[in-house]
Amino acid sequence: MGKNLTKRSEDYSKWYNELVVKADLAENSGVRGCMVIKPYGYAIWEKMQAGLDKMFKETGHENAYFPLFIPKSYLSKEASHVDGFAKECAVVTHYRLKNAEDGSGIIVDPEAKLEEELIVRPTSETIIWDTFRKWIQSYRDLPLLINQWANVVRWEMRTRLFLRTSEFLWQEGHTAHETEQEAIEEAEQMMNIYAEFAEEHMAVPVIKGVKTESERFAGAVETYCIEALMQDGKALQAGTSHFLGQNFAKAFDVKFASKEGSKEYVWATSWGVSTRLMGALVMTHSDDNGLVLPPKLAPIQVVIVPIYKGLEQLDAISDIVKPLVKELKSKGIAVKFDDRDTQKPGFKFNEYELKGVPIRLAIGQRDMTNGTYEVARRDTLEKETVPMDEVVPKIEFLLEEIQKNIFSKALDYRKEHITLVDTYEEFKNVLETKGGFVSAHWDGTSETEDRIKDETKATIRCIPLEAIEESGTCILTGKPSLKRVLFAKAY
Amino acid sequence: MGKNLTKRSEDYSKWYNELVVKADLAENSGVRGCMVIKPYGYAIWEKMQAGLDKMFKETGHENAYFPLFIPKSYLSKEASHVDGFAKECAVVTHYRLKNAEDGSGIIVDPEAKLEEELIVRPTSETIIWDTFRKWIQSYRDLPLLINQWANVVRWEMRTRLFLRTSEFLWQEGHTAHETEQEAIEEAEQMMNIYAEFAEEHMAVPVIKGVKTESERFAGAVETYCIEALMQDGKALQAGTSHFLGQNFAKAFDVKFASKEGSKEYVWATSWGVSTRLMGALVMTHSDDNGLVLPPKLAPIQVVIVPIYKGLEQLDAISDIVKPLVKELKSKGIAVKFDDRDTQKPGFKFNEYELKGVPIRLAIGQRDMTNGTYEVARRDTLEKETVPMDEVVPKIEFLLEEIQKNIFSKALDYRKEHITLVDTYEEFKNVLETKGGFVSAHWDGTSETEDRIKDETKATIRCIPLEAIEESGTCILTGKPSLKRVLFAKAY
Repeated sequence: MGKNLTKRSEDYSKWYNELVVKADLAENSGVRGCMVIKPYGYAIWEKMQAGLDKMFKETGHENAYFPLFIPKSYLSKEASHVDGFAKECAVVTHYRLKNAEDGSGIIVDPEAKLEEELIVRPTSETIIWDTFRKWIQSYRDLPLLINQWANVVRWEMRTRLFLRTSEFLWQEGHTAHETEQEAIEEAEQMMNIYAEFAEEHMAVPVIKGVKTESERFAGAVETYCIEALMQDGKALQAGTSHFLGQNFAKAFDVKFASKEGSKEYVWATSWGVSTRLMGALVMTHSDDNGLVLPPKLAPIQVVIVPIYKGLEQLDAISDIVKPLVKELKSKGIAVKFDDRDTQKPGFKFNEYELKGVPIRLAIGQRDMTNGTYEVARRDTLEKETVPMDEVVPKIEFLLEEIQKNIFSKALDYRKEHITLVDTYEEFKNVLETKGGFVSAHWDGTSETEDRIKDETKATIRCIPLEAIEESGTCILTGKPSLKRVLFAKAY
Repeated sequence: MGKNLTKRSEDYSKWYNELVVKADLAENSGVRGCMVIKPYGYAIWEKMQAGLDKMFKETGHENAYFPLFIPKSYLSKEASHVDGFAKECAVVTHYRLKNAEDGSGIIVDPEAKLEEELIVRPTSETIIWDTFRKWIQSYRDLPLLINQWANVVRWEMRTRLFLRTSEFLWQEGHTAHETEQEAIEEAEQMMNIYAEFAEEHMAVPVIKGVKTESERFAGAVETYCIEALMQDGKALQAGTSHFLGQNFAKAFDVKFASKEGSKEYVWATSWGVSTRLMGALVMTHSDDNGLVLPPKLAPIQVVIVPIYKGLEQLDAISDIVKPLVKELKSKGIAVKFDDRDTQKPGFKFNEYELKGVPIRLAIGQRDMTNGTYEVARRDTLEKETVPMDEVVPKIEFLLEEIQKNIFSKALDYRKEHITLVDTYEEFKNVLETKGGFVSAHWDGTSETEDRIKDETKATIRCIPLEAIEESGTCILTGKPSLKRVLFAKAY
């Protein structure tokens, strides 16, 4: 293919790493564990942001911005929270550099030591709840529905572009409510919004569920999640939404005067998705030729490549193409006419295939004569010849069709990779040979969960919300169970 | 006024601080020098971002994202650059917390010390040029036109909301070019874009110019700037665009193969505006009653307040108002119908005046009978009665009218506050009594500039691009000068 891309069947992990770099999505930086998001990758992230932001605003949320730094003492106020994040914190201890007196270069000025160390936010519950205390006095101030787009840092030892990086970009929603019920509904609503975004925009099918106690967010009472399945049979957690109970309200003393006049602690949620979604997007749809992007998130939806000899022929092609470009743009379609004279058509075809552009039009002398375009779709690699006066509706049709097709392909794959098992033998066998989600009975204890993880590397991805009540026995201990849960090896 | 806002004439600085907090733009956080940008303030910043981002993209720039952290050694590679930023750097030295063995709480784990300290970016030239080295091989890779929206940290000892904070939000453009001329043109283009944004969107008139050597960005060959004038007669630097020559290309060894096949260092620019623009916006237009926002940046452009007794009357008003709301929204006008039953109309009037909503409509029983609205504009506080069927065109007219009016008011103020002086006596006198820009001859030396600054606190804000060649003598030293420069006390 001229792309020198490792095949998925040879080494899925290597394929992913190569693709992210070669398709210009991201690359490693000189800073350990921190990535550079390149313009093409960032353009996709911007489309994700725009889609999510619209959904947040339509459900009454407002954006705000809170400090990057969290005083160490804040982090300690919620006990399980600090336990969850202490091991991966970037700590600011000084606020000045200076020239070394021995001329050896620039050093940290020992006299500029902070009284209290600052943590670069790994998540913002603590600094936000410290602020919410000032914003909430009465039930009239509730619900408080806030979102923040920000960078966060969790010091990771083993990193992979988009999937696990020391710094990543995300949004974090933080809300405060009068009642427990309302907070639970909010947490569920945001899980549903994430699922809708994943399926409708990213074309990534997801399973909604709740996490087991040991997989819960540090400080949460309940963690809702959406879980996706990658083409190598491993699961990927694509978003989480937490019902926090009154834990942070108590830790930061946030009370409100109720309608009845009593002082009550408020109820809370938090929820987030990150640039990790970029990894999910790549791994769900792409193939051995490169990226396959859903039209709704593609920075370039249609590319037009002229095939010509000499600039005179290019001019003639341009005369035909330019009105088409204008028409497509007026319909809100992101189109690029690649008339670069420095690269050959074959090079361009390869490049746009690698970059996952959903539709490619080509036009040469024969097309000019016949009044046609060659139209190729990236998802199936099918080509057809389309009369010029039908090309706009064809493109509109294909953009919808490709969005649907890649979703249904991913859904089929997932359906084929949810396996019901009733014995531990079968369980291990499916994990080894087929991968995917394994639906099995579990006795509900963390001990069993841990042992299964130690022995098979599979974790409980979620207790699906749609699981049907069904009597059974735990695959490991034989103890009674009322519901199947989904296990998988995961990113 | 019911707003308890200090008057500008009493204490301008106090007025500003109070207004920013009371109008819900921002507040101080528990972290020294770091602010919380509240939803209403952030909504204005989002509109600024959207306006600027569009202009950047229309001129061929693409967004990307680079690491928050900069290894200390990178910062040191460009000598004047590290000198400029070393004194205000937040330094990350450790990557883990742990429980103290004596049970005294959470401490920084001394065993998790970084081999090389990381600086929280004060600006990103160094990390970006370290990346550009990988992206640029040939003239075909140029120009490289990159922008980043990000947070940066400069450790400030004396901070003020928006104007000077330890962490702030900004965009930073970084571009690489084949030739010196092209880079200079880019730097000038971005200064012009900033000026256009300030004047057309923010309604803030600005003067374009270049900085003197001592006010130049650390690492720049030339710094272009836009300077605005606040209502207290102090200047505010609203944006800068730097021609960096080959300084960073040499420091990070970024060369390209030219068309002729030789290896050349690339030419660079960088340019940025920050949340400081929020401060400029507030201080240019607002008055003793609160914010005055330009319609183009107002999160709420029109508010409709019902005046009613009993819910039945409110229902009748709602029936009339709701189609209007729908019509305004369909025209892209941000309208809010404030039908809260918890607050009285007078309270609401005050609130929207404080928050600078450009147009307020009120409707009560008499308006219902007469088929009218009361329409009030925030900039002049004028009210008039408008027939219902004329209210939409009236609103469209007023939104444009208010945008123009506040710009021309600010421009008039600035015109009145540029004073030409020819003696040092006069110079000091104008600064003390009238403030504003003082246009004076200067001998071109940093010594003179420093002495004037020490004696009067005024700095050279810029050498205006539009200055006319004119022979004169330096107000301090009497040495010959060919151009007037603009002095002012500044934020």
